[in-house]
Amino acid sequence: MKTLEQRILQEGKAINRDVLKVDMFLNHQVDVKLMYEIGAEFKRLFEDKGITRVVTIEASGIAPAAMTALQMDLPLVILKKSHSVILSTGTIQTEVYSFTKQSTYNLTLNSAYIKTGDRVLLIDDFLANGEAALGASRLIEQAGAKVAGIGIVICKSFQPGLKKLREMGYAVEPLANIAEMDKDFVRFVKE
Amino acid sequence: MKTLEQRILQEGKAINRDVLKVDMFLNHQVDVKLMYEIGAEFKRLFEDKGITRVVTIEASGIAPAAMTALQMDLPLVILKKSHSVILSTGTIQTEVYSFTKQSTYNLTLNSAYIKTGDRVLLIDDFLANGEAALGASRLIEQAGAKVAGIGIVICKSFQPGLKKLREMGYAVEPLANIAEMDKDFVRFVKE
Repeated sequence: MKTLEQRILQEGKAINRDVLKVDMFLNHQVDVKLMYEIGAEFKRLFEDKGITRVVTIEASGIAPAAMTALQMDLPLVILKKSHSVILSTGTIQTEVYSFTKQSTYNLTLNSAYIKTGDRVLLIDDFLANGEAALGASRLIEQAGAKVAGIGIVICKSFQPGLKKLREMGYAVEPLANIAEMDKDFVRFVKE
Repeated sequence: MKTLEQRILQEGKAINRDVLKVDMFLNHQVDVKLMYEIGAEFKRLFEDKGITRVVTIEASGIAPAAMTALQMDLPLVILKKSHSVILSTGTIQTEVYSFTKQSTYNLTLNSAYIKTGDRVLLIDDFLANGEAALGASRLIEQAGAKVAGIGIVICKSFQPGLKKLREMGYAVEPLANIAEMDKDFVRFVKE
């Protein structure tokens, strides 16, 4: 997605080989018009997949996922991050390791909101090691649904997540796919 | 807002005098069409206030705030909740006590994203004791901006937040204003 790549080049800040700050339009200040365009692009990419539900992970995935669900006319489900084990009725959980924060959290879902037979489009802001997307997919499948597509705003494809998810058979579509980066330098994968 | 009141009566679950669960359409599963209507209503209520920026608190405020910002054609800023003290350049913080969780957290803002002279519309999902809204207002004012309006999706006006904020001079508009509730019973304030 050219608009997104341009915004990353103009306003993003590559700190080192691993860390890209996009606080300016995605994570802290949010350009909602851009999120709406991102939603339109996810709709275009996944509209033939029979999607019945859009799912994301709090908090940075919510804005792009909400704009996607709005345009696909589908409900949105937000998976919650919790540091405690929650055992209320109907709640299912999976442990996720965050390389960024070097700690684990529990991703939780009330299974009333994802049903057997649902075809889920999972949306997230970043894909790097793939731990969050894998955890979310485990929960969605545990609820009896199928992950029919994974839409990623920014993918760091030099990290193992994208390859891992595709090898497992998931249909992953990154809108901006970074091949390589370093301090003040970003190179995208050619399409 | 009649549609919202009806959804609360039909799908919300009043647990006791204090706790209303709206996981079905607002907090966990999100009805994005309803969020869009909520955004349209906030636009109508605040469009003569010269708003330059929409601000919310992660995570449940993001969906309604994003739909408001989209329709008002304004940037959105998401205040982050952190349990640690963050001291990076330009970051400002304020401590907020959560009565729900009975613990404190730090609300943080990179002051690059709210500027002197900004007129902010603060959006949040719930107003009860007002601690989160007061904390957010402190941060916004610390950044040199004015809180020109506060839009609340669901207000529990039997708790002190609404009265406190209005006495301090803030223009607070709740879309659903609960006068009283108890197990399986909700009564709204008459307009």
